Amino acid sequence: MMKDVLASVERPTAHVIGEHDLSLYGMARYHLGWADSTFQPAEYDAGKRIRPLICMYACASVGGDPTNAVPAAAAIEFLHNFTLVHDDIQDQSDTRRHRPTVWSLWGASQAINAGDALFAIGQLALIRSAERGVQPDRLERLIRGYNVVTLRIVEGQVLDLGFEERWDISAEHYVEMIRGKTAAILAYAADAGALIGGASDESVERYRAFGEALGLGFQVRDDVLGIWGETSVTGKRKADDIRRRKKSLPIITLAASATSDERARLREIYARQVIDEPEVDWIVALLKRYEIQDQLEDVVTRYHDEARDIIEDEAEDNDGRRALLALLDQLSRRAF
Amino acid sequence: MMKDVLASVERPTAHVIGEHDLSLYGMARYHLGWADSTFQPAEYDAGKRIRPLICMYACASVGGDPTNAVPAAAAIEFLHNFTLVHDDIQDQSDTRRHRPTVWSLWGASQAINAGDALFAIGQLALIRSAERGVQPDRLERLIRGYNVVTLRIVEGQVLDLGFEERWDISAEHYVEMIRGKTAAILAYAADAGALIGGASDESVERYRAFGEALGLGFQVRDDVLGIWGETSVTGKRKADDIRRRKKSLPIITLAASATSDERARLREIYARQVIDEPEVDWIVALLKRYEIQDQLEDVVTRYHDEARDIIEDEAEDNDGRRALLALLDQLSRRAF
Repeated sequence: MMKDVLASVERPTAHVIGEHDLSLYGMARYHLGWADSTFQPAEYDAGKRIRPLICMYACASVGGDPTNAVPAAAAIEFLHNFTLVHDDIQDQSDTRRHRPTVWSLWGASQAINAGDALFAIGQLALIRSAERGVQPDRLERLIRGYNVVTLRIVEGQVLDLGFEERWDISAEHYVEMIRGKTAAILAYAADAGALIGGASDESVERYRAFGEALGLGFQVRDDVLGIWGETSVTGKRKADDIRRRKKSLPIITLAASATSDERARLREIYARQVIDEPEVDWIVALLKRYEIQDQLEDVVTRYHDEARDIIEDEAEDNDGRRALLALLDQLSRRAF
Repeated sequence: MMKDVLASVERPTAHVIGEHDLSLYGMARYHLGWADSTFQPAEYDAGKRIRPLICMYACASVGGDPTNAVPAAAAIEFLHNFTLVHDDIQDQSDTRRHRPTVWSLWGASQAINAGDALFAIGQLALIRSAERGVQPDRLERLIRGYNVVTLRIVEGQVLDLGFEERWDISAEHYVEMIRGKTAAILAYAADAGALIGGASDESVERYRAFGEALGLGFQVRDDVLGIWGETSVTGKRKADDIRRRKKSLPIITLAASATSDERARLREIYARQVIDEPEVDWIVALLKRYEIQDQLEDVVTRYHDEARDIIEDEAEDNDGRRALLALLDQLSRRAF
């Protein structure tokens, strides 16, 4: 479906400026893992596709036909990828899914274009829901929700960039940020699936809450993995988030618990261009002393339990429900 | 309407990180001329609003109620402004409408966010067309068209950035670029207005062609003004596009007409960091020798005549038609 949507809008701009020129749709296909950097077809890691799966499973779990949710699921994955292309520029990330990022190959200006195009293509995917029998009033709600969730994601990104320069961020502030940046799209995925499946307004709202709890747990787990995750799981060295000077939840929680001397040293270390290994070790030891990992694993468990309770209360016993619970288990077991 | 739409989605993120923090919606309001750089309400030049006017006039000219086109007109203006915010980053433009650009105040990363938000807000404006009695099938076409035109604009921007480093661009290539970058949104504005006004498919297509011809004429006129425009009209010095080393249509046309020696000198001058006044004068004299201004004024007249013929053939004699023809006259008279 995603490839269909992209193919339906793709136009060769080659006739305008010659065969080997930069292609807007080529950049999009490269980012999505469908093309190499010369725009030849290829198959690369395209991510875990958790968001579209949640949308389709939620549709099935309220008794709908999950194929009706395919256009919305594709739209959600396009939206996610649009935000990734722009995030990579903002964070100056060189690699994504083990390949060079779009901006690092074609420059920030062209990467802005690629992200903008992916967002428009996502909207074009979403409107195809009409072809799957989604009625006009529900389609309107889907489109409105899609754009409101985009605003939530961008609000989260504004906060995240703002946090980089500050140490007065509490854990509550941080959760507000990830509620927009990470959880909102998972909440929308579940909401949209339930809506397309024909659920009542109350039920749609419960699915939204499920997606949000799952998303918050997902991001906190990701933050924990960024420090304590095994290389075999994350593909990165342990404590890599510290070397990258990320102010993720473990660091924010630590800063709130530590003595003022410890906090001063932490800030001083984070102010350096490069953090050396003895300093990394000092921070890891401090995290251990304050039992930050245990605290945050409890947070993850709480969010996942909340998500599980909602589905167990709400969903009928069917394949969709089973798939949602299995996905939740799988996310709960992402190894430390 | 535009302020309503923005107000309906705006959320204070202030509670999260304190009162004086960067606001996503503050950046949007600043760019739109509704706020100063501290996000206090203010009234600045907000541009000529040609695109929303065309949408509403086209609606009236096919016999529709132009107030029904207000949400689409607002959406089009949001779309235009989203592309301006991103263009200013890409072109590293410091000022827009006599004020500092968003990226020059808050950095490129936050300006990417502001543009992304304006695009989502535009979609939220568009879907409000349903409240004005636009039927689901026409609303679907409006939304599809809105996102396809966005792709055309971005395609044009990809080409425009690509052209900066090249001298093998013909006038035909250039017209293909501005057909996307500038004319597509004017074509959509006329198309959307006619569609909302209840026009037949054939008539909608004629309005689209009107908007495209008007848009092409508009951009070529803009290129002419960039070299021969009076300061009193443009607010810039004559020949400013040469000092900014812009490869606009006059320069591309000149490069195609000039001798190979002249072309070599032109390229050599454009390769410098700064173009001195004697070189500016030399290029202006060369443009005069090859009568480039006359050639391009003929091109503008041809596009404007094409646009006028369509409206005179197509539209009933009513206020909408009169407003479209008056707007066309006004654009034709933008002084050299």
